[in-house]
This record gives sequence, structure tokens and C-alpha cells, in this order.
Amino acid sequence: MPVDPNASIEVSAYQWVPPSAAGFVKDMRLRWALEEIGLPYRERLFGGAGGQKSADHLAEQPFGQVPVYREAGLSLFESGAILLHIGEKDERLLPRDEAGRARAISWMFAALNSVEPFLHMLFMVRFVADGTDWQKTGMDSIRPFARMRLGQLANALGEREWLEDRFTIGDLLMVDVLRAVPEMELVEEHANLAAYLDRGTARPAFQAAMAAQLKAFERHAPIAA
Amino acid sequence: MPVDPNASIEVSAYQWVPPSAAGFVKDMRLRWALEEIGLPYRERLFGGAGGQKSADHLAEQPFGQVPVYREAGLSLFESGAILLHIGEKDERLLPRDEAGRARAISWMFAALNSVEPFLHMLFMVRFVADGTDWQKTGMDSIRPFARMRLGQLANALGEREWLEDRFTIGDLLMVDVLRAVPEMELVEEHANLAAYLDRGTARPAFQAAMAAQLKAFERHAPIAA
Repeated sequence: MPVDPNASIEVSAYQWVPPSAAGFVKDMRLRWALEEIGLPYRERLFGGAGGQKSADHLAEQPFGQVPVYREAGLSLFESGAILLHIGEKDERLLPRDEAGRARAISWMFAALNSVEPFLHMLFMVRFVADGTDWQKTGMDSIRPFARMRLGQLANALGEREWLEDRFTIGDLLMVDVLRAVPEMELVEEHANLAAYLDRGTARPAFQAAMAAQLKAFERHAPIAA
Repeated sequence: MPVDPNASIEVSAYQWVPPSAAGFVKDMRLRWALEEIGLPYRERLFGGAGGQKSADHLAEQPFGQVPVYREAGLSLFESGAILLHIGEKDERLLPRDEAGRARAISWMFAALNSVEPFLHMLFMVRFVADGTDWQKTGMDSIRPFARMRLGQLANALGEREWLEDRFTIGDLLMVDVLRAVPEMELVEEHANLAAYLDRGTARPAFQAAMAAQLKAFERHAPIAA
């Protein structure tokens, strides 16, 4: 079990988040990658999502987010940068041949910069326009862009199992981005993409990572009135 | 001059884009990085932004974007992935010590994933709501998030010249993200951030990259009626 209080790798997470965010905080990506290669890590839990960030937290993570990653003199922030660092440790995540490595890293950036922003934009418009009369119009205006990117991704995937000829950290990140789509039907419009998402989240390492994130929240759940 | 038809590195770009996009197409980042280290590259010009993408283009870049990068058996897409690859070539872009390297890569991902999406969201809402009565409301609702990220970035920068103790590819990418802010006053609210942006774009390598991107567009400009 990779969660180990004595591990040399430290991953930050939140003590608790509301149920709608549980399972979706971005330390999930790191836990999943570490589970894939059986590398133990200790948790460092910050006070919680939203609200004021402690000076301590901001000093390590300029945007007051999680995760932060520490390991013997190294301090990394941004889940993508940390995943790349974890990937470097093990060929099962990041191919060692130069061409395969280049493709896996290209897919990592594609997940973060060409797919996630458009899904997140749909989420944000739904959020900021909640209860207003422009929520539907706003989402209808943004949705075609999210749909376009997912269609392009489905075409690129085709009938393959993973984005290249084997599972890589690019798939890990893409699956983690896809499962946070604000409207699941946008993924389900593409049978191959929906199957890809199922294949990713069915991996034992994903399941173990999810259990570990939720376990921390259970320990710190507010006491029901 | 890094543009050289016989170079072994190939960078894709567009033949021509409308004036509002000129200087902002994302091959700029690569040209800039290659200029910083004096590495020659040849251009490969695709038919143009917007509209239908050729099958040829989509086969190399799943989202039909530029840039694509090719070099002796390697094919990379996504400007972030390519910048990382270029960074690996030269210590002037990516520090060789592990801790410095980790910080520079963290800033690269921060630029692409924690800053750019919020600036781009403001741009997108302005674009999709153009001429509608929800454009102002939509932008007013999104702007606080862009402003928050820029404020956090300004705090992290403080009085330093660059985000860490020297210029890295993290600064190159952050500067390239900041200069595309849809409302420049959001950067100018922070004197240190505005000065940082000026410092970045004043670099001779930036200027040379800009001249090279614009030169391709001039050669292919539509003939005025």
C-alpha cells in the first residue's frame, strides 16, 4: 500500500473537501501514478479547499492549490510537472526510448492544455452563472468547443486501447481529465472514448488511489449536526 | 539567424493569420526558445488557422493546431512538450541541477495550466458572446478568477527579475502567456508583473522570433482588393 508515513516522497492533499469534489482533487493523479509503480508516499494534509490559504501553503504553491510534492531537496508544484517527475522514475509510466517518451509527454500536455481547459470552461460557466438567466446560453456557447476537442481526441484514439501502443502517463492524465467532464454525455457520444475512460478507471492502481484520497476525507469529515 | 531551410529541426506554423492573431500563434514560443540558444530550424507552413484542417495536419497534430516539431525520428506536438524537449538541449533554458530543473518545469506547467486557462477563458467569453447582451456579465463573472491568478503570480514573483534566481524556460512560457492577456490592465495592476513582461519581450531572442513569425505572414498575405 503506497501510503506510508515513513516514505521519503511527500504528497500534499486536503484534509477534507465537499462531497462534490471528493475523488477529483488533483493529488489523485499523483496517487494513481505512484500506485502504478508501487512507490510509497506520505500524505501532508492542508486545511481545505476554498477559503483563505495559509502563508505556509502559498509559500510552497503560489496558487494555493494541491498537490505539492517533496522529495529529498526537491519541491515541485503543478500536477503535470510532478507527474513528469514521477514518470521519469519508471519505464512503466514513461517509455525510455526517445520517440515513445516524446509522444507520451505530448499527450500529457495535450490533456492539460488542449482538453482540460475546454472542459473546465464549461464547468466554470455553469458555476459562475448559477441561478442567472445566461447560464444556459453561456454553456450552449462554450459546449461546441468542448465537443470539438473530445471529437478530435476520439478520432486520434481510434480503435486502440491507449493513445499510443501501450499505457503511459499520458493516458493516466488524459483519463483523469476526461472523468471530470461536467457533462458525461459529451464523452459518451464517442463509444471508443467512453470505453477508454472505463479502461483507465478500472485499473487497480486507480482504484487504490481513489480509496486513499477518500480515506483522508473520511477521517476529517465535519461532524454531522 | 535560426530560420534555415536546411536545419534538421522542423517547426510548423501557419502561412498566414488575420492581423489580430499575428505574433500570437504558438510557434512563437518555440522560435523564441530556439533563438535563445541559437539553434537553427526550418519552417513548415500549414494552410492557415481556422477552417478545415487537412488530413495531413490532423495526422500529426490531433487537434489541428500548430506547432508540430520534427527532428530525426521524433515527432512532438503541444507547445509545452516541445519547449521541454528544446529546454533539455541547453542549460541556458533548463537548469541542469535537479532542484533548479524541477522548479523551472513547475513554472512551465503553471503558465500553461494555472494561468493561461483563466486568461483564455476571458478571451473565449468575449469571443462567443460578441454582440450579445450577456457578454459584459459573462466577462465580469470570469474576470475575478483571471485577476486572482495574476495577483498570486505577482506575489510569487515579488521583486525578483525572474520567477526563480535566473531566466529559464518557465519564464519564457510565462511571459508568452502573459502577453496574450485579453485585458492588459489586469497585468498592469501589478507593476512588478508588467516590468517582468517588458523584460521578457525585450530579449533579443524574443524580438528575432517575432520578426520570423511575421515575415512568414508577410510573404503569404492575401492581396488587398
